Amino acid sequence: MSGNTLGRLFCVTSFGESHGPAIGGVVDGCPPGLELSEADIQPALDRRRPGTSRHVTQRQEPDQVRILSGVFEGRTTGTPIALLIDNQDARSKDYANLLDTFRPGHADYAYWRKYGARDPRGGGRSSARLTAVTVAAAAIACKWLAEHHQLRIRGWMAQLGPIEIPFEGWEHVATNPFFAPNATIVPRLEQYMDELRRSGDSVGARINLVAEPVPAGWGEPVFDRLDADIAHAMMGINAVKGVEIGAGFGSITQLGSQHGDELTPDGFLSNHAGGVLGGISTGQPVTVSLALKPTSSIRLPRRSIDRTGTPTVVRTEGRHDPCVGIRATPIAEAMLALVLMDHALRHRAQNTGVGPALPPIPGTAP
Amino acid sequence: MSGNTLGRLFCVTSFGESHGPAIGGVVDGCPPGLELSEADIQPALDRRRPGTSRHVTQRQEPDQVRILSGVFEGRTTGTPIALLIDNQDARSKDYANLLDTFRPGHADYAYWRKYGARDPRGGGRSSARLTAVTVAAAAIACKWLAEHHQLRIRGWMAQLGPIEIPFEGWEHVATNPFFAPNATIVPRLEQYMDELRRSGDSVGARINLVAEPVPAGWGEPVFDRLDADIAHAMMGINAVKGVEIGAGFGSITQLGSQHGDELTPDGFLSNHAGGVLGGISTGQPVTVSLALKPTSSIRLPRRSIDRTGTPTVVRTEGRHDPCVGIRATPIAEAMLALVLMDHALRHRAQNTGVGPALPPIPGTAP
Amino acid sequence: MSGNTLGRLFCVTSFGESHGPAIGGVVDGCPPGLELSEADIQPALDRRRPGTSRHVTQRQEPDQVRILSGVFEGRTTGTPIALLIDNQDARSKDYANLLDTFRPGHADYAYWRKYGARDPRGGGRSSARLTAVTVAAAAIACKWLAEHHQLRIRGWMAQLGPIEIPFEGWEHVATNPFFAPNATIVPRLEQYMDELRRSGDSVGARINLVAEPVPAGWGEPVFDRLDADIAHAMMGINAVKGVEIGAGFGSITQLGSQHGDELTPDGFLSNHAGGVLGGISTGQPVTVSLALKPTSSIRLPRRSIDRTGTPTVVRTEGRHDPCVGIRATPIAEAMLALVLMDHALRHRAQNTGVGPALPPIPGTAP
Amino acid sequence: MSGNTLGRLFCVTSFGESHGPAIGGVVDGCPPGLELSEADIQPALDRRRPGTSRHVTQRQEPDQVRILSGVFEGRTTGTPIALLIDNQDARSKDYANLLDTFRPGHADYAYWRKYGARDPRGGGRSSARLTAVTVAAAAIACKWLAEHHQLRIRGWMAQLGPIEIPFEGWEHVATNPFFAPNATIVPRLEQYMDELRRSGDSVGARINLVAEPVPAGWGEPVFDRLDADIAHAMMGINAVKGVEIGAGFGSITQLGSQHGDELTPDGFLSNHAGGVLGGISTGQPVTVSLALKPTSSIRLPRRSIDRTGTPTVVRTEGRHDPCVGIRATPIAEAMLALVLMDHALRHRAQNTGVGPALPPIPGTAP
Repeated sequence: MSGNTLGRLFCVTSFGESHGPAIGGVVDGCPPGLELSEADIQPALDRRRPGTSRHVTQRQEPDQVRILSGVFEGRTTGTPIALLIDNQDARSKDYANLLDTFRPGHADYAYWRKYGARDPRGGGRSSARLTAVTVAAAAIACKWLAEHHQLRIRGWMAQLGPIEIPFEGWEHVATNPFFAPNATIVPRLEQYMDELRRSGDSVGARINLVAEPVPAGWGEPVFDRLDADIAHAMMGINAVKGVEIGAGFGSITQLGSQHGDELTPDGFLSNHAGGVLGGISTGQPVTVSLALKPTSSIRLPRRSIDRTGTPTVVRTEGRHDPCVGIRATPIAEAMLALVLMDHALRHRAQNTGVGPALPPIPGTAP
Repeated sequence: MSGNTLGRLFCVTSFGESHGPAIGGVVDGCPPGLELSEADIQPALDRRRPGTSRHVTQRQEPDQVRILSGVFEGRTTGTPIALLIDNQDARSKDYANLLDTFRPGHADYAYWRKYGARDPRGGGRSSARLTAVTVAAAAIACKWLAEHHQLRIRGWMAQLGPIEIPFEGWEHVATNPFFAPNATIVPRLEQYMDELRRSGDSVGARINLVAEPVPAGWGEPVFDRLDADIAHAMMGINAVKGVEIGAGFGSITQLGSQHGDELTPDGFLSNHAGGVLGGISTGQPVTVSLALKPTSSIRLPRRSIDRTGTPTVVRTEGRHDPCVGIRATPIAEAMLALVLMDHALRHRAQNTGVGPALPPIPGTAP
Repeated sequence: MSGNTLGRLFCVTSFGESHGPAIGGVVDGCPPGLELSEADIQPALDRRRPGTSRHVTQRQEPDQVRILSGVFEGRTTGTPIALLIDNQDARSKDYANLLDTFRPGHADYAYWRKYGARDPRGGGRSSARLTAVTVAAAAIACKWLAEHHQLRIRGWMAQLGPIEIPFEGWEHVATNPFFAPNATIVPRLEQYMDELRRSGDSVGARINLVAEPVPAGWGEPVFDRLDADIAHAMMGINAVKGVEIGAGFGSITQLGSQHGDELTPDGFLSNHAGGVLGGISTGQPVTVSLALKPTSSIRLPRRSIDRTGTPTVVRTEGRHDPCVGIRATPIAEAMLALVLMDHALRHRAQNTGVGPALPPIPGTAP
Repeated sequence: MSGNTLGRLFCVTSFGESHGPAIGGVVDGCPPGLELSEADIQPALDRRRPGTSRHVTQRQEPDQVRILSGVFEGRTTGTPIALLIDNQDARSKDYANLLDTFRPGHADYAYWRKYGARDPRGGGRSSARLTAVTVAAAAIACKWLAEHHQLRIRGWMAQLGPIEIPFEGWEHVATNPFFAPNATIVPRLEQYMDELRRSGDSVGARINLVAEPVPAGWGEPVFDRLDADIAHAMMGINAVKGVEIGAGFGSITQLGSQHGDELTPDGFLSNHAGGVLGGISTGQPVTVSLALKPTSSIRLPRRSIDRTGTPTVVRTEGRHDPCVGIRATPIAEAMLALVLMDHALRHRAQNTGVGPALPPIPGTAP
């Protein structure tokens, strides 16, 4: 299939542009009988929504989702679930001056080289706005995973530019606009962002994720390994430049006698594997870490060219997130949910009734 | 399709176990008319082959590949190319003592949980031996990419455990068993490995890759982005725990005014993007970096359990690489080649004749 | 991927139920640069629309299509094209009495067995109404095929129940509600349908299709042959029970010396192959014939059971086509267009620049 | 994926040419734990084998299959099962005179137009010899379907050229080289074939299939309907030009009151649907009928052209089946098995635990 469908059995097909009439998606392959209404999806969209703090883009989008199909009398029917979100605050004129130039670090240049045309309206298809579709679709996956496996996926911001954010407790994540698991550090993050915004610049971030409990056995080696599909999904999020599973790049300097997680009758003694061995979940929590680059649309002047190749200088005045990482936590959670859901179905397609019946292994992550 | 096929249009289907009679693969979708014989593939296999230095496993496998189909009178016909490599030095008895226990950090536990059975013979399907199939298939892709796009993919070891390896020149890579781009550091690497081997332990590594020139426009957002598919392929290599494109995790602390690569009429001024923006190649060199964990099969004793859940201690006496990273360079190059080949075909399927006709951009990587 | 996406490169994902708020689809993989607006799609929908003669269902649906994405300034951008059609005349109450019973010959029984629930509103997902999505998507394919290959797909009704309809000329097809290529026979068809409608019964039909000129070389054996994919698409149309390519079932009694189409420098001397040999188009017109069963929803009483297994008698009073074949011609044309479009892209992905440059062969079909 | 893989979850990837060193395939997605050895596959190959009567090609191929992977200690492991069959009696010289000409009705012309080259050795990839791979792969599917669903697939020749073959009993099918379910008619078939062979001509045939019991609920509408996927598989068999499900083309003249199968608490009263409604199995036997064209390779002279377009006359002297339909029964059974196996897995991926638990419905087919 073409590049706008994610998943083999739980399939999300995405459509829409940042400044077109609507964005949306089709979820095909959802098991029937799941209780579902817009109220199950809207909270996830609200977590991702722009305009909710001064640290993110001030675009105002209610992001109200409508379910157009696949649900009857409050339950999924097993047929495709179409999700529609109208665009409302689409001020294309903000972008008029960008029509012929390319923003350094922005996808607009690559899109032009690929498709031969420019849709300058807020990034068109490459806009992070499209992640709303992913988040909406993943809310369905999350509900099914919770009901069938008690599986929960949670993320947090672990670093904002130079500021590392120590994990203190899950209870903090929902209480600040950064998804920081740490209340003490929030004023410092706010001050940093205020200064950054004033300077007209942007910065990167790190997001961490944990899914638990994940049943052992998910993943389809040798190519569609669980970690490989997670990496695909994560690197497919706008602005992500790096993905780690478990110990990640820290593995380079580890010895085998440190890295390999020892087993006991009570479970593993560590989780350097990040819950995946040989591309298959082990029953431990699945842990993932992402690097997001700084937003490319900044107010500072930068050298660039226009479509004729003539040198120019670009400043982006539109409404943008000075740190896309701030809103990335719900998006990363969503992508992980979609991968796990797809593998839950792939695993039971081939392996129903095989394998030892053992419970997932309680984890200590993060 | 199931999990042992990679690619949508240039498809590699892999089969075989480490200690079965043979391993192999089927390449479907190769353009017809490409000159091809075993002599085009064998050198790539020889680079990956075990037993060629004291620093890698001493298993002796000639890894002679045979083409069973898809080539007629020295040229590809457009039909599936079957590749077969016999296993020869398969001493399964080495593994007899592992039948009922699990190696910490090894895939054997996860395989058992998924499939309900154990194939203890050298890791069965999860063995790094299977990467020979990928390397053989990728040799075909490399030849086509070179002929049609002058595209070349090259990798090197950038770090061995604690030892960082500064890039000095491509000419060094082929002159040492580590694929180190640096002649001076080789004695230090050899000494480190000798000590490691004596200690019975193992260690991780970092591999870097550059592909150039890559035409602008490859990649299929929003999900099958070029970087996403690269991440999928890389994280699918045995022992890989982290993947970076361009600046990777370094992006976290970069400002937008540093990260975004400025454009001039003569090309980009930097390559923090790693040649990919919005999931589409820009024409710059594509740069990738990988973290490999230490081998799980080590001689040092480790706590584990057996199939009944009883505590035990495991030592692995078979022939193993104390640093899988040492042989990983050709494998990583191969995976990158397969992804690029697939996207070359995907791009021309949809976009033949569109987009501005501009040449790739000369890069300065690494 | 799941079952509601058709095509590998030109992909149509369908959603919606007959009596939900809307139906629609997403077309992914369309080449960029194609001029496109709703005005290119609406005429195709209007040909398929119900309520346009007394011989078809009297449901009134304007079937106004909206393009939600993938088109900018009047041209396709290469990103997904979302198509939305609101349902308007959805009188679900007509179906209230069907909630617990199954119509003989209708999909409602099978859907209940598969998904465990009943959506009695006009057949839900199994309704022929969903073919509107296919027709809309195919209008895009038709436009591209016409522009790039001058390819045209045309169908006609060849038999209505017992009445065979001799082909007299294309000019007649658009002048009667049956898509009959024969003006003389129309009164007889009308009389037959009037009597059938009064009797409360339904009847089957045969539809024929011709696509020409089809370039030689399309089709991906050994499994995704062009004829195989056509058969898949055709048998996937509601009510179709048989598919023929070329001589079809007539081949059984032919001798090889009759069937094999002889070649001359001026082209083939006959077209028993229906334009496909070995699963690949030969350059001749592609000819297809379909058998459609009689509508299952009829007013005559029939024995059935309800969900508890209790015997009952079913009569269907809703608005239905007494011969689904009457409206099937545009639908069958649409499915053929989607298959040809997908294979046009698949062929050029692998085989750009190979094969002898010869024009398609002028055909004499039908 | 490319065109040589069949199935989404139970995937068969085929490779090889008629006169290359070997043919084979890879089965990916087979559930683990199935007892399997070559002895489970060989009988199916022996039924399809050439050279077993004077009515079929005299090519002598032992068709010994070897399992190269995916089986350990007599059971499938869940990893890919590679199947290899060596070619032995490949007399390519028989075809030397065909190098530059095209046989009317043969795939060689279309292959040349697609791939730009000719592999004249017995049809290369388009040879019916490749169906051996399908038959071998399907033997695995048949074993699983029998063990898990008691499902059995059986076919027979229903017509040989002009001679219709009334069904008398299953016990006759294995007792004659035609797979005729009728002992009395065999001498007439033999006489017809002897005369045909002497005349140097060939003829078509009809094959019928029944699968039973098929659980209700298999099939993935709206596009991957069970009947659509069956049609795809059947039309993908060499020489097939028509496919019917249930009443097939007979549906055209049926009234709805005749065609729709009435339900009673004891099951359906007829099976015009062929066991499929709305693209989903109903629990009735699945019935399929195929039309095969006469072999294109005949001794009678026929007008054709060569690669330069010059007129010529072609006679085919190689060893060929004068009626490919004679050996088609095991091939058609195999293709049906592969489709049903794939849908068994697809259904349980999405719908495990949903739907009413009712047994399949006893059928009266044929």
